[in-house]
Amino acid sequence: MKQPLVVGIDIGGTNTAFGLVNQQGEILAKENIHTEHFPLPEDLVAVVCKNIKKAFQPFVETHELKGVGIGAPNGNHFKGTIEFAPNLKWKNKIIPIVQLFSERIPVKTILTNDANAAAIGEMIFGGAKGMKDFIFITLGTGLGSGIVANGELIYGHDSCAGEIGHVIVFPDGRQCGCGRKGCLETYCSATGIKRTYADLLMSRHEKTSLEEKVADAKYIFDKALQGEEAAIEAFDYTGKILGFALANSVAYTSPEAIFLFGGLALSDQFIFEPTIKNFEENLLHIYKGKIKILPSQLKENTAAILGAASLVWKELVY
Amino acid sequence: MKQPLVVGIDIGGTNTAFGLVNQQGEILAKENIHTEHFPLPEDLVAVVCKNIKKAFQPFVETHELKGVGIGAPNGNHFKGTIEFAPNLKWKNKIIPIVQLFSERIPVKTILTNDANAAAIGEMIFGGAKGMKDFIFITLGTGLGSGIVANGELIYGHDSCAGEIGHVIVFPDGRQCGCGRKGCLETYCSATGIKRTYADLLMSRHEKTSLEEKVADAKYIFDKALQGEEAAIEAFDYTGKILGFALANSVAYTSPEAIFLFGGLALSDQFIFEPTIKNFEENLLHIYKGKIKILPSQLKENTAAILGAASLVWKELVY
Repeated sequence: MKQPLVVGIDIGGTNTAFGLVNQQGEILAKENIHTEHFPLPEDLVAVVCKNIKKAFQPFVETHELKGVGIGAPNGNHFKGTIEFAPNLKWKNKIIPIVQLFSERIPVKTILTNDANAAAIGEMIFGGAKGMKDFIFITLGTGLGSGIVANGELIYGHDSCAGEIGHVIVFPDGRQCGCGRKGCLETYCSATGIKRTYADLLMSRHEKTSLEEKVADAKYIFDKALQGEEAAIEAFDYTGKILGFALANSVAYTSPEAIFLFGGLALSDQFIFEPTIKNFEENLLHIYKGKIKILPSQLKENTAAILGAASLVWKELVY
Repeated sequence: MKQPLVVGIDIGGTNTAFGLVNQQGEILAKENIHTEHFPLPEDLVAVVCKNIKKAFQPFVETHELKGVGIGAPNGNHFKGTIEFAPNLKWKNKIIPIVQLFSERIPVKTILTNDANAAAIGEMIFGGAKGMKDFIFITLGTGLGSGIVANGELIYGHDSCAGEIGHVIVFPDGRQCGCGRKGCLETYCSATGIKRTYADLLMSRHEKTSLEEKVADAKYIFDKALQGEEAAIEAFDYTGKILGFALANSVAYTSPEAIFLFGGLALSDQFIFEPTIKNFEENLLHIYKGKIKILPSQLKENTAAILGAASLVWKELVY
């Protein structure tokens, strides 16, 4: 009998990556294509599908292609469309991406946004194995999230659930790209900690604006490792707000664990210690000491493909 | 063939009510028992079960008892226990309430807390019929909530999900009974609006403390109807915070609708207008204009029994 195999596709503003993923979460083949080279989504899909078929050739005797999972910004799970994704070239359009793919590769095709896909990746192949209730947070340029309750992703009635990055933590807080003020992601994200760090440096008159420009989350982490006070303080402040916001999140879905993923989550104790401390301090008593805040077990460079593939694996196996 | 019938039981600090509920949501018989008269839960259960059997007598030829649904404060859905409920006489105990009932009436028995039960009541017999994603808010002494996503109540890993009343809206806000500060229910509940109204009156030096004492939500509503500025302002302030908090809630589960239940929700436009206005103003753009804030379609005096019964009806029919 042929072994089942699934394609995971991650469509991003710069790159579109795909991989062939087996039931153990091993990526048997993978490839990157520059999304930006394709002004029309149909052309991107055509090339991706051609390359998927080529990549599948060595496995055609031993494996069977069971499905395609797609993670994409603004991916609408119910409609199978990418809608007005600001970071894609087709940002003014509604793209029927599931239809485009399944016309060329007629198998089960499932779409969701990138953070949701990674959350399912954590459940099928990562640290959330066996969990039915957890929250997955990705601390990247923004703060993305996927919420799992009763063993299922919460999509909401319109596929737009799980936008914890846009929970307002300070009504008159930092300006957010969404047009409102005080959203969690303006504080707790790579961009957020950069703003905090720049503020701290400026208030201390310690650095020039030139140096601030080179700061990214990794740079701030390195500075914290060297013992720089402003860098450590930036992490403390980020963790303080993240811990507070996650304590509020618990009141909605009472998860077993919250997973942190992305660049900031790699900053070890600098982000986890203040986050966990402020999380516990702000929890309602019935939740105290019961909920784990954990680093994601997914790897940065394969999480997107694994997450997308796991959308299909979840349907096939679990 | 006999018609199916379900018992709905609402265990409260003062009264325990039960009713026989058919598939149309009609209550064929109901009764009240003083919870406080029973120092031991076993004795209460014995009397309730005896009375249920008696109430069922006229229907024994035509109907079949298919299940018992129980709504109770601190009801743990997974364990079937009432745990340390502060308003019950047995507040220091863990009561295996499902076991106690099913020993005497051996049918399917389902327990949850009162707000969750009412949420399911709204789904089966109220305004949320056919909805798979909605939030139910009860504005009583406190603010209770039940969250439905993917057609299922969110219980969380420990049955403690759905505590929106204890989301902190102001980190250094009003003292809450839970020991923390700034919880939503300290502003948005019957107690919350009384505090707001008393504050407003005192700041205006308009009333004596004696008159403040008689104020309840209904009193403030009557004053608002008479055009009293402080009363109208109290509703506006309550709606402002409720609208803001519900806009944040949407970012978690993206519901189709949010239902408001309880005394405050009966204050018509005084509570709905400011709530909806501030809700829309604070929503992330992808949610704007898509989510309804509606009055519950359940009646105050039967919601608890219907809600409890609907726990079983949901399992039997839907």
